[in-house]
Amino acid sequence: MADYETPTPKVTTGPIRGSRKIHVGPLGVKMRAINLEPSCGEPPLNVYDTSGPYTDPSQIIDIARGLPEIRRDWIRARGDVEEVQQREVRPEDNGQLGPDRSGGVDPFPHVRKTVLRAKPGANVSQMHYARRGIITPEMEYVAVRENMGREALIGHIRDGQDFGASIPDHVTPEFVRSEVARGRAIIPNNINHPESEPMAIGRNFLVKINANIGNSAVASDVASEVDKMVWSIRWGADTVMDLSTGRNIHDTREWIVRNSPVPIGTVPIYQALEKVGGVAEDLTWEIFRDTLIEQAEQGVDYFTIHAGVRLPYVPLTAKRVTGIVSRGGSIMAKWCLSHHKESFLYERFDEITEIMKAYDIAYSLGDGLRPGSIADANDEAQFAELYTLGELTKRAWAQDVQVMIEGPGHVPMHKIKENMDKQLEACGEAPFYTLGPLTTDIAPGYDHITSGIGAAMIGWYGTAMLCYVTPKEHLGLPDRDDVKVGVVTYKLAAHAADLAKGHPAAKLRDDALSRARFEFRWRDQFNLSLDPDTAEKYHDQTLPAEGAKTAHFCSMCGPKFCSMKITQEVRDFAAKQNTSEFLATTNPLPSGEGDSPAGERGEGVTSESEAEAGMADMSKLYNETGRELYIGAGDREHD
Amino acid sequence: MADYETPTPKVTTGPIRGSRKIHVGPLGVKMRAINLEPSCGEPPLNVYDTSGPYTDPSQIIDIARGLPEIRRDWIRARGDVEEVQQREVRPEDNGQLGPDRSGGVDPFPHVRKTVLRAKPGANVSQMHYARRGIITPEMEYVAVRENMGREALIGHIRDGQDFGASIPDHVTPEFVRSEVARGRAIIPNNINHPESEPMAIGRNFLVKINANIGNSAVASDVASEVDKMVWSIRWGADTVMDLSTGRNIHDTREWIVRNSPVPIGTVPIYQALEKVGGVAEDLTWEIFRDTLIEQAEQGVDYFTIHAGVRLPYVPLTAKRVTGIVSRGGSIMAKWCLSHHKESFLYERFDEITEIMKAYDIAYSLGDGLRPGSIADANDEAQFAELYTLGELTKRAWAQDVQVMIEGPGHVPMHKIKENMDKQLEACGEAPFYTLGPLTTDIAPGYDHITSGIGAAMIGWYGTAMLCYVTPKEHLGLPDRDDVKVGVVTYKLAAHAADLAKGHPAAKLRDDALSRARFEFRWRDQFNLSLDPDTAEKYHDQTLPAEGAKTAHFCSMCGPKFCSMKITQEVRDFAAKQNTSEFLATTNPLPSGEGDSPAGERGEGVTSESEAEAGMADMSKLYNETGRELYIGAGDREHD
Repeated sequence: MADYETPTPKVTTGPIRGSRKIHVGPLGVKMRAINLEPSCGEPPLNVYDTSGPYTDPSQIIDIARGLPEIRRDWIRARGDVEEVQQREVRPEDNGQLGPDRSGGVDPFPHVRKTVLRAKPGANVSQMHYARRGIITPEMEYVAVRENMGREALIGHIRDGQDFGASIPDHVTPEFVRSEVARGRAIIPNNINHPESEPMAIGRNFLVKINANIGNSAVASDVASEVDKMVWSIRWGADTVMDLSTGRNIHDTREWIVRNSPVPIGTVPIYQALEKVGGVAEDLTWEIFRDTLIEQAEQGVDYFTIHAGVRLPYVPLTAKRVTGIVSRGGSIMAKWCLSHHKESFLYERFDEITEIMKAYDIAYSLGDGLRPGSIADANDEAQFAELYTLGELTKRAWAQDVQVMIEGPGHVPMHKIKENMDKQLEACGEAPFYTLGPLTTDIAPGYDHITSGIGAAMIGWYGTAMLCYVTPKEHLGLPDRDDVKVGVVTYKLAAHAADLAKGHPAAKLRDDALSRARFEFRWRDQFNLSLDPDTAEKYHDQTLPAEGAKTAHFCSMCGPKFCSMKITQEVRDFAAKQNTSEFLATTNPLPSGEGDSPAGERGEGVTSESEAEAGMADMSKLYNETGRELYIGAGDREHD
Repeated sequence: MADYETPTPKVTTGPIRGSRKIHVGPLGVKMRAINLEPSCGEPPLNVYDTSGPYTDPSQIIDIARGLPEIRRDWIRARGDVEEVQQREVRPEDNGQLGPDRSGGVDPFPHVRKTVLRAKPGANVSQMHYARRGIITPEMEYVAVRENMGREALIGHIRDGQDFGASIPDHVTPEFVRSEVARGRAIIPNNINHPESEPMAIGRNFLVKINANIGNSAVASDVASEVDKMVWSIRWGADTVMDLSTGRNIHDTREWIVRNSPVPIGTVPIYQALEKVGGVAEDLTWEIFRDTLIEQAEQGVDYFTIHAGVRLPYVPLTAKRVTGIVSRGGSIMAKWCLSHHKESFLYERFDEITEIMKAYDIAYSLGDGLRPGSIADANDEAQFAELYTLGELTKRAWAQDVQVMIEGPGHVPMHKIKENMDKQLEACGEAPFYTLGPLTTDIAPGYDHITSGIGAAMIGWYGTAMLCYVTPKEHLGLPDRDDVKVGVVTYKLAAHAADLAKGHPAAKLRDDALSRARFEFRWRDQFNLSLDPDTAEKYHDQTLPAEGAKTAHFCSMCGPKFCSMKITQEVRDFAAKQNTSEFLATTNPLPSGEGDSPAGERGEGVTSESEAEAGMADMSKLYNETGRELYIGAGDREHD
């Protein structure tokens, strides 16, 4: 990627190879157009774009100022918010008590002195508007964004298995409203994060992915912290969770939110724990509540709240192989045990909801008791918590607050669907947000793949958002390359799920790339892929020459062999004649094959002589056609 | 890997980290024992081992001599073979007419002058013995090998969904015989490849994987060609296909077979095509037949034969997006079109079978018309060929010749199961051998993952062997790293499938690794993984210190936070008391939750005062226990 002229500190900018930013409709919805070679006569392919202004060369990026507030007027025009003094930042907000793991981070230079909050008695959640029949600009933005090129497919036969989802042929603003109103989709966008481009998470929309970032164990500058977010969304992260701990977490978060075009999620209990020096027993409702307000005013779009980790469930984890692997879950379990009291998150849930609706923050109800190994999958502790999350979902909905549900974890393939089915039943179709799941424990170093398998499957079954896993899972902290591999792996898993669900627009990209592959449009093949840089790099390792980019062969077979060419011959040949005539001259199929698709074509049985004569003609005809074309071999697809 | 003192040319040798070779039972079946830290009190974990003598420091490796002939006496003892003069090698066998793509390769110095063949009228296939009720040493070897540690699990409740497979609690030689007799499993081992360690491919055995190798486009020495095979089996390839083309293919193959402890597969049509200068129209039955004899005498264990590409099916591919992507399929399609005759592979099938049974070569019936894109999946051409492969399977079985069936390819998730179901129906449960399938076309550079998803799923549904795909698929030739990534990805996919099928022994390894993870036995966690080198490397990138290998924390959380520790506290706590008493003192669950697992535990509802009192006691008790232990955070599993 080129670095465009931007004031320091710098982050990754520049267009994604072969693409340009386009703005669709009156709202100027940002999408990415992939240009194809003129020779193919195909229009550019428009794809969903999460990368924000960073991939738009026409934009000046200055992370010290933050992104434009595209939702500012929409929010204010509703007349239900008021400006209030921002809560004063205290030393403990930056974790002075904790270990210094993020290095020196200066405060964001343009912190807003006043922030927005719902007027007394008002509710500014998208769900609240939706339930009153109001279609917001956010909903309109989502509708345009989700459609992609699906208009081109009106009338096409749907090909997929959606397990009871209700994916429309065309997404209208009204459809978005109805999905949000019934809680089947959420649009996470805090009124204090007006920089965000609205997006929806729900099983009837495109499957989304989340990338986790966190402050570095070693000191690093602000730009590199912000760039983790920028890098994640460049490759397709739909939301980003900031899991930072230790010092400067408040300031780091401010830098990230002000520069993020995607929703930002956090786990507030982490910061609350910092404020009590890491001693879980010392956590109190007051400290936790103060932390929610602090982050709400900064603009965090969704909070992971582990309110389902209830005192009676904790002992259910005692017999597990890997016990409690969720950090938030273990913190609350420790609190419950040490006080032998019910979780304050559970007890105070409705008070938390009051805060959520004043800023339009969505719940991501945490699965603190999710399994951490194949051995613990689908056990009593996990499902006890899930049903409690279902109970809490209904309590949140009673106040028109948006909710999604977090899911496992580590689950063998045959137990994945049960997770989806129980979640749909227990949580009234609230969006499911799962971590993988990993389908085996024996491949540390490859857990982006063990989990990518589970992610694709549960996405197909109905999960709305997939939380990525990097190759470093269980082993260490992901670096820049790990983050990219994790994001791309989850993008392909999410897309495989969209394809299998029969999403009307998903197949457009596969078909465009397959046509490019068949026609040896190498550049188009690279540009249409999820990671054009890697695709071209791999190609060039074998055939670096510029000429090879347009050559009608590939390194797998060389110039002499190419199955793509023989197929073109088959086409020319089939085109040059009436197929029924062709078939009539072929050998009749052996009897006993009537139950096969071949048998069903019912070729007419012809006499030996007729067949012989016809074959001679065909052979002559063929030899007059493109037999000069060299013939071939496919790629190394094992023969 | 250390390079042990071996005469040049050298290949990769040395034990896999943390493991030692063991020999089980009277036949000395080779397996790999993973030693665990004494502290855990667990016995070594024995795992299936494909790596042969190369990972056994006690063996002297000399590829110029080849491997010991462990099956030599078994084969001769049956008294049904005779020694014959080996067919003389001709210049065209080494593709002198083709392009030089493999560089200078000397003939194998110890080529056998005489080879084995069935006596006139005899049939030396394992299926023939099996059907006469004979249990061969090969079947006994397979039985021991497949069992792994499953004896330890006798009596355990089976946990899995096997879609109608018949996986036994314990594999007996008689079970192996019966599976081979009915064609549900094959043991590919040519009588001229006595160096091979017998293995079975069948849906009621462990899911296997194949790695493809081929001579380099650039000149390379013999050792590097042989090392491609050695490197593949080191990481777990159960069989290897030699897809070499161009010059020296005969000599290269000899070097590979003589040094391979795993079955070797080939696609004979490739070499036949070389013999006619790459002009498909010039192929004849005589040249093809001669090539089969040539490779049969060298010891190739299974042949991919594209006998299902029939003339009437060729036009069915004309409307496809990517036509014919199989190299063998396109060669035969071209032959059929140019002569407008039925395929000689189909017409001469029974004659080919006569050759197969004289050496015990297994059929791998090629899917020359498999889809090369999502758009072409499950179409008429593909299934027409599949049903013909079913017809040919029965014809091969009529002569007691072993058969497996090759499958796709590119298939979206919702169309994968139909492939398995149709194959089982059409081919009478003959083992299915699929390439992936890739579940989307949009991720070139990551097709080991797009296909790993499909491979895990179809393996779960019943596919017996998965042909690997590397990150370079569609883009270029895989290098050493690509081959390793491809093999490990497919090993984890095959294992995920075994787990989901409920294979009795599969879970042992996941559980052992999860216990090691929970107990911070880092070295055990590395050594139990599919790729210990990568796991340790990733760990060390964040925490290089030796001490960190035994530290009771990891880099994801640091020394202060660790959910594993809190879980240990939960256990200590739960152990210190009667759980029913514990539960009785917890808050009663809210009514209306009766339909949840939690509700089913039926905690007694207690009065406020009782609860208060009990909680105070519990709190006191807890504070007397391990509350000093620091508490924590799990890995970065998204909270």
